[in-house]
Amino acid sequence: MNFFQVKNQDKTTRARTGVIQTDHGLIQTPCFMPVGTQAVVKTLDQRDLTELKAPIILGNTYHLHLRPGEKLIKRLGGLHKFMNWSGPILTDSGGFQVFSLGLQKTKKPNPNQKPSKPLVKIDDNGVDFRSHIDGSLRRFTPESAIKIQHDLGADIIMAFDECTPDNADQKYAAQAMERTHRWAVQSLAAHKKLQTRQKNNQYLFGIIQGANNSELRKKSAQYICSLDFDGIAIGGESIGYNMTATEKILDWVYPYLPAEKPHYAMGLGLNPLDLFAVVERGIDMFDCVAPSRLARHGMLFVQGADKHRININNSGFTRDVRPIDKNCACSTCQNYSRAYLHHLFKAQEMTAMRLATIHNLHFYIDLMDQIRQAIGNGSFSRLMKKWR
Amino acid sequence: MNFFQVKNQDKTTRARTGVIQTDHGLIQTPCFMPVGTQAVVKTLDQRDLTELKAPIILGNTYHLHLRPGEKLIKRLGGLHKFMNWSGPILTDSGGFQVFSLGLQKTKKPNPNQKPSKPLVKIDDNGVDFRSHIDGSLRRFTPESAIKIQHDLGADIIMAFDECTPDNADQKYAAQAMERTHRWAVQSLAAHKKLQTRQKNNQYLFGIIQGANNSELRKKSAQYICSLDFDGIAIGGESIGYNMTATEKILDWVYPYLPAEKPHYAMGLGLNPLDLFAVVERGIDMFDCVAPSRLARHGMLFVQGADKHRININNSGFTRDVRPIDKNCACSTCQNYSRAYLHHLFKAQEMTAMRLATIHNLHFYIDLMDQIRQAIGNGSFSRLMKKWR
Repeated sequence: MNFFQVKNQDKTTRARTGVIQTDHGLIQTPCFMPVGTQAVVKTLDQRDLTELKAPIILGNTYHLHLRPGEKLIKRLGGLHKFMNWSGPILTDSGGFQVFSLGLQKTKKPNPNQKPSKPLVKIDDNGVDFRSHIDGSLRRFTPESAIKIQHDLGADIIMAFDECTPDNADQKYAAQAMERTHRWAVQSLAAHKKLQTRQKNNQYLFGIIQGANNSELRKKSAQYICSLDFDGIAIGGESIGYNMTATEKILDWVYPYLPAEKPHYAMGLGLNPLDLFAVVERGIDMFDCVAPSRLARHGMLFVQGADKHRININNSGFTRDVRPIDKNCACSTCQNYSRAYLHHLFKAQEMTAMRLATIHNLHFYIDLMDQIRQAIGNGSFSRLMKKWR
Repeated sequence: MNFFQVKNQDKTTRARTGVIQTDHGLIQTPCFMPVGTQAVVKTLDQRDLTELKAPIILGNTYHLHLRPGEKLIKRLGGLHKFMNWSGPILTDSGGFQVFSLGLQKTKKPNPNQKPSKPLVKIDDNGVDFRSHIDGSLRRFTPESAIKIQHDLGADIIMAFDECTPDNADQKYAAQAMERTHRWAVQSLAAHKKLQTRQKNNQYLFGIIQGANNSELRKKSAQYICSLDFDGIAIGGESIGYNMTATEKILDWVYPYLPAEKPHYAMGLGLNPLDLFAVVERGIDMFDCVAPSRLARHGMLFVQGADKHRININNSGFTRDVRPIDKNCACSTCQNYSRAYLHHLFKAQEMTAMRLATIHNLHFYIDLMDQIRQAIGNGSFSRLMKKWR
């Protein structure tokens, strides 16, 4: 069996179903991947993830490198064993965090302080950055990002890339793209070299960049898809957080994406409708912190509500004995009322965040189930209409 | 069947086993009762409590009155239904919180501010206090404390009492005790009046006070035990937090405690050894926030460790692949290593607090199981020796 196989191709859209095979189990696609940044999906434990039938979870290389460190995790048997999760794991390359943390911290400098040393310094061979935990100086290169991911031992790993911001000018975006392309080749080489020593199969994905520029995106898609990656990801600051731009970018790159490899949109899934927008554009995998982050703030998905979500903190829910969503089969909806959840949020009880996270993740995982079924039986467009 | 029945009396100590019957199930005694202050045991949900086989949980009248309010809870079907907990519940009278919150806030006044109005004002008919949530002025009386507890609908409720601090002088302690005695009679009368209207049986316990004074404690025990309460509690600031004083107090009052009623030490269980100290003194029930609060700070119970606990934050646990306690059957010990928990605490992940709470509560609930078995088969003294 191949790493990836397409099962069904939708007749009227680019949507398709498929299956990814890893040493830690099969992943039915298209799929939403919950994010477990620090070797844990915030507020949950791995029994919750098993109950939620999470098909695969993400870990963040940047965070795990800084704490507890990939050497420790390797010594303790790898990330699966460390966190006691026997299902598939994907780790990112650290690129996004390195840049986004650098951008965040330099956006609003304190005018009374003399400018501190830049947090992120990019050269053609890698990136210097400071740890957000202790300020220590660190460096990522394509080789080190791959080595860290081999030590962590995830089933799917990512090439090291430069994530260019939305507002990058064309010249900078082009430079960053070229660097990402060179790093893609270096990531592949590093992976091949280390691969022979690994017990478990690890599959490496390349990342298309090119900001919001159609020519750059096409060029990047063409180049990345020409390389020997196991899957193709589409990266960039816009993806997921600016859906108009995301849809354009996905349309630009689609003609270059090899049908026989999985397609991954990185950092996407802010709103249930976004899931349809990318699935109909031929995307097989995506991840997002949004459903769990929204949950921790009391924003809960409800089919048919405004933006398909409610804010459980609103006083209107004080006496509402209904479950969050009457059609939801998650353990939170089976056991607790909106009134109780409203109370737990008002009382700032941590339990509220966990129960809300269970609901929002279940909502996405269940919706992806419905989407896969609909693609399989030819009713995907009908399902999409029902939601829009 | 009676509300309470003694099953086994230990031969060499005052320890005994028994069973309490409530509309929401049987409680095997002696038992430890987890505290669910705001209608939730912090970090857990009711499925966790069911898995932990929590025999009964506590709710705090003071907190539930302020938020979400007993009227709302009553309207939504009572506390059991509101929080979806079908097991027994006990509510305190609010007395302890009213006084302890008042004492806390007035202990360290800001010298630069003019003294604010006192937070707690006691008169013979009740207590004025300010809400810690919004500063609003509130009043509890024996009648209102009982009415609130009837609205909440717990299986076991408490008479309204004045919890005198450890360092109260004898005159004040005597006055407070007399007030507590009058309030006990008033609580009983209020309960009897409301009782006929209740669907569920609610059992009212009286509270012995008298600070650290043997004469007052004996007098209080004699008086409270002469009234028509369903159970007898021993209150006061010392109980649980000063075990030397607690043991003395329990020895003073024991001769007056009716054998046919359950005996409840309020706020006790800081250390596993404390459980033995009170069980051997004839106590049937006790509660404490300590095991869950300690858990949230990473202090985890381990039989045989110094004070029978470890601080999982210590760097010595970074690479420790063992479970918290090798003999523990809790889901945390079955699934996660000390190294992983250490990481989750260092990374300040909320999941850490829940997994730790599950362990500490399981540890107590399991130890109480062992203690009951030992009393039943005559090996209680041997078990106690093993631990000391």
